[in-house]
Parts: sequence; C-alpha cells; structure tokens
Amino acid sequence: MDGESKLVERVARAFRLRTGASHTSALRLGIGDDAAILSSGGKKDWVLSCDAFLEGVHFLTDRHPADSVGFKSLVRAASDLAAMGATPRFFLLTLAIPVRRTGTWLGEFLRGMARAARSMKMTLAGGDTTKSNAVSISITVVGEIAGGRAVTRAGARPGDLIYVSGTLGRAQLGLDLLVHGNVSGKNRRGVSAKDRAIEGLLCPHLYPSTKLELGAWLARHRVASAMMDISDGLSTDLTRLCTASGVGAQIQSAAIPVVVLPAALSKCRGRLKFHPLQMALHGGEDYELLFTVSPRNAKKLHAAPGFKHLTQIGKVTRGKDIVLINSKAGKSRLKPQGWDPFGS
Amino acid sequence: MDGESKLVERVARAFRLRTGASHTSALRLGIGDDAAILSSGGKKDWVLSCDAFLEGVHFLTDRHPADSVGFKSLVRAASDLAAMGATPRFFLLTLAIPVRRTGTWLGEFLRGMARAARSMKMTLAGGDTTKSNAVSISITVVGEIAGGRAVTRAGARPGDLIYVSGTLGRAQLGLDLLVHGNVSGKNRRGVSAKDRAIEGLLCPHLYPSTKLELGAWLARHRVASAMMDISDGLSTDLTRLCTASGVGAQIQSAAIPVVVLPAALSKCRGRLKFHPLQMALHGGEDYELLFTVSPRNAKKLHAAPGFKHLTQIGKVTRGKDIVLINSKAGKSRLKPQGWDPFGS
Repeated sequence: MDGESKLVERVARAFRLRTGASHTSALRLGIGDDAAILSSGGKKDWVLSCDAFLEGVHFLTDRHPADSVGFKSLVRAASDLAAMGATPRFFLLTLAIPVRRTGTWLGEFLRGMARAARSMKMTLAGGDTTKSNAVSISITVVGEIAGGRAVTRAGARPGDLIYVSGTLGRAQLGLDLLVHGNVSGKNRRGVSAKDRAIEGLLCPHLYPSTKLELGAWLARHRVASAMMDISDGLSTDLTRLCTASGVGAQIQSAAIPVVVLPAALSKCRGRLKFHPLQMALHGGEDYELLFTVSPRNAKKLHAAPGFKHLTQIGKVTRGKDIVLINSKAGKSRLKPQGWDPFGS
Repeated sequence: MDGESKLVERVARAFRLRTGASHTSALRLGIGDDAAILSSGGKKDWVLSCDAFLEGVHFLTDRHPADSVGFKSLVRAASDLAAMGATPRFFLLTLAIPVRRTGTWLGEFLRGMARAARSMKMTLAGGDTTKSNAVSISITVVGEIAGGRAVTRAGARPGDLIYVSGTLGRAQLGLDLLVHGNVSGKNRRGVSAKDRAIEGLLCPHLYPSTKLELGAWLARHRVASAMMDISDGLSTDLTRLCTASGVGAQIQSAAIPVVVLPAALSKCRGRLKFHPLQMALHGGEDYELLFTVSPRNAKKLHAAPGFKHLTQIGKVTRGKDIVLINSKAGKSRLKPQGWDPFGS
C-alpha cells in the first residue's frame, strides 16, 4: 500500500470508519473513493470531492503561469467527479495567499480558474480566503448524477476488461520539459518548430482536460463496473482500484498508449530521460479514466464518446497481484511507483 | 469594506457573480454568505461551507496542542452551518502536513477532530491528503435544513432587534493569555487557583463550541430575520450583516455581554491589556451567533434554547451607519476592526 493510502486508512480508523463503505442512509459512499456520494432521497445524488493544490508541492510560481495554476486546480478537482460519472455543477474555493500575490498574480489565477469553470459549466458557490506564506488552494467540487448510478472503484470482477482513455505520460513529459528541459511555461510564444512542439507538449501538464463526457456516459449506460481517474500514475491508481475491488490484474505493456516525441524534439530525448513506458506507468496528472468493463458489455463501448481514444490494456484477474506482461522481459509484478506525497 | 470582503467581491467579479445572490435553481445562495445552499428539489436543502485553518496564521504548533487544532478546525467550519440554522451532517478534510507531523502530532490532531465530530454528530465523508512545509487544514462541512428555511445575512429590516448569544471576547482573552500571558495551551494541569482560572479562560480559545441548537431553532421557527456567526469580531461581522441587508445599526455599548476577569487573575490585568469592551467589539473566534428579530417575534425568543444567554445589544436602523452609543462618550461610528487577513 502506498504512503498516502496508509494515511487515509489511519484517518478512517481515527473516525471509526471503513474506507469505501456506506455509513448512513444519506451518505452512500464515504472516505476512500474518488468522491463521496450524498443522497437526499430524491432522483439525484450529489457527489462531493476535495483536492489540494499547493505552491512548492504541486506547482512552482516561477515555472507555472498563474492562469495555469487557477485552471488546473479546478480541473484536477473536477476529475474526481468524472471518475464517478458525475456531472460537475458547483465548487467551493479555499484560497490562502501571500499578500504580495493579491495583485496581478491573483487576477491571472482567477482568469484561469474562471476559464476552467466556464468550460466545465461549473458555478462558484462559496469559499474562504485568508493570507499565508505560500499559495495554498483547496477546492471542493459538487457534481450530480442520477440516484445510484455513480461508479466506484470497488466493482471490478475477475474477467473484466481494463481500459484507459487517451495517452498516458503526457503530463509527466510536460513536467519534465518544465523542470529539466530548461523551458518555462510562462509567456511562451511559439516561433520555431521546436518552440511550437514544446508548447504542445507543455499543454497537458499546464492546462489538462478531464474526461467528463466519457465518465458520465459510462455511468449512465452502466457500462463500467469500476472506474477512477489516473491522477497519481497508472501503477498507483490501478493498485488502488484493484485493492478496492479485491481483485488482481494482468496488463500488456505493449498495449499501453504511450507518448511519441515529435521529430522537432528528437535531440532532447537524452536530456529529458525520455522513457515513454515508465512515464505512462508511473507519471501522474494525466486525468485520463481507468475503468473496467465486463466482456458482455464491451461491445457497447463503440458508442462511447471518444471511443477511438480508448485502449484495452489488460484484464482483471483473481488474486491480488498486478502483473505486467512484456513480450521481451516476460512477466513482472507492477508495483505502485506513481506520485506519493508520503512515499519513502 | 474590510480587506477580506473586498477580495471576496473581486473573486465574485472574476466569475461574473453577485455576492449573496441565487444563481441557478439548484444553487439557492452562492458566494458571500456564511454558506452556500444546494437544493435538489426535495424537502431538504444541503448547506455547504469551507474553512481554512493554517499553521502560523490561525494557530502555532508550539502554543496550540494538536488535539485543539483538530477540534477547533472542525468546530470553526461547522459554525458557518449554525449561522444558517442548518444541522451539521458530513465533512470533507483536506490535510496538507509535513512528514515530521505524521506521527504523534497527527494522532492527537485526529483524536481532537474525532471528538468534535462525535459531539456534533458529523461523519467524515472524504478528503485529500498531501505533504507540505506547514500544516494546512481545509474543511468543507455539509449540513441539512428544511427546504427554504436557511437564514441568510440579508434579511434584517429597520426596527429589528439585534441579539448576540453568550459572552463576547472570551476567545480573544484566551489567545492573549497564550501569546502575552506566558502560558501554554499544552499539557496544562490546574493545581493553583490561578492555574485553574487560566485553564478555564484558555478553553473558549482552544476548544470553542458552536451554537448549533440555537441556530437550528431560530431557523425552524422563523424567528431570526438575518443571522451569522461572530468569527472575525462583532464590529466586522455586524458590518457584513448590515451591508448584506442594506441597513444600519445602533448598538448600546453597555448592553454588550463582556468578559469578567476572575479574581485569581486580577494581577494579570495590566500585562494582558485587559479591555473587555474592545475584546468584545473586535475579538474574533467566539463563534457566538449574531441575529436580528422583528419586534413582533421577540417574545417567541423566550422559548429558544439557552434564552438566558441571549442579549439584545441594539436595533437595526435605516441608512448604512453602525453607531455605538456609550453613556459617557456619546455616539461614535463603529468601524470594522476585527480579524482581517488582508487588512492594512
């Protein structure tokens, strides 16, 4: 179990809760999944999740433009709603900022966040503001879904097929470019082919998008048996999904959709330590969806939004092991090696 | 307008919202009040609020015991639900914490928070954990209330009577004792009369309580025309209530319920700069309720829980001024001088 999951278990124990369980008639799902589900007995359930985004931990003010910080902090939080199949509606913003950031920086931050809110049709419903030594953002998102339709991490069954949306490792490549590639996310103007290529590669890291439409479709049509978003890396998040479902998995490494470096950047390959499979397995912040589908439901997937960007990467198995199958290296156990704030 | 209110207005503008307004059929009340109100068309509304509690800003790890930090952070957040008349049900905890605090400190913190949760019958529904350089806590609380019964800041009318619950300035006195009184909130064992007196005075600062029962009663019986909690000080919070209602107020300074220093501490009076009225007017964190009642509803108050601890301190007036009437000094304008993170 990764460090963060251990800490969540410890918090749950302090409150005498079981992770992933239903606790009261109104709380259909509590601590341990992507989001909590509140039912008020009507046709709709509310889905709630919160997410922290901190200067020095999740972003650097000298590398990340303020509008990216605003945009991404809301998208990250909303991704937990996509992971349940819910449609985002409202959010609460807790913003702690140094007084020196209340000028231009705050203006750009709010513009970025407002752009993300418009694109996801979310309304700011409230919040709290205070001063601090570093920027600290905490966002609570509220989504809605038809009663009982939310997809948790816990429904995967042996034999189910495992899918991911999109390409994995893109956000990690963007981060590597920012940190090791001697480029900045600020005030970039693409002039050369290389500049334009870099700009394109930074985008998934600076301005990610979530798979809201896909998540909602999978929930509405009851196609996914289990689902979560890939925020900390496939190896870590697949382990969490399997743990919640009490199952194992077999993944074909050749099937994993990895990043291809544009020709204009082929010379940067070494400096970037470009390992597409490692980035796809352990890179975080892609906000793609990881979900399982029973074999008899698999053909329904053809009607899913963005079907051509879905990839079956393996199968759910009995037992607990997560096995990576590589045509050259053979079988190996896939351990959680993604982002873990409390990892050793 | 105080600095924090200005910042809230700026955030609202960035999202093209009006503070205190209803924005969609599901969002009955948005940014600018104590909490947001979500309606899903059923008999009950959900009330949501979030609150930040930061090391170095709101508490000091060398002065405040970890269990007080856990206890108080949840009570503070729940106080915004009391302020609407809602009954607390669930909360989400965003906890950013240095790795060195994940041992004993975290255990005590969680024990304090669990104690507060039990006392208010709240269930932890989810959250997020990450590492950081300093402890940063953000809590989102969810309460419920009968549809349409939540009491906002905006309903006060000229002629309404202004009430507060409890005694004001107690939390400020506790803070002053901790900061200037050369005492610590940690591991205190009351032996002498003075020690016991200090312990009693620290309590409202370290382990505050909210007026949940009173708030819910005032809402259920439609007795309060406007309500909020006093978290930043009477002068600041009364100004916010009056601004939201578009009214002024006249306050009798002699009527304000102030702290009386116990005899055992009479010698500390000078060192503590003990000014009971100033503490009551501008001291924060009392989490008492400030509410207005029309004259014809005033007699109903006799049936309110804790009626004998309610005090009428003044009246709502036309205009915008908040006037303090002192039998010796005469009339003066009461300006917001409570806690303001963005004050000059």
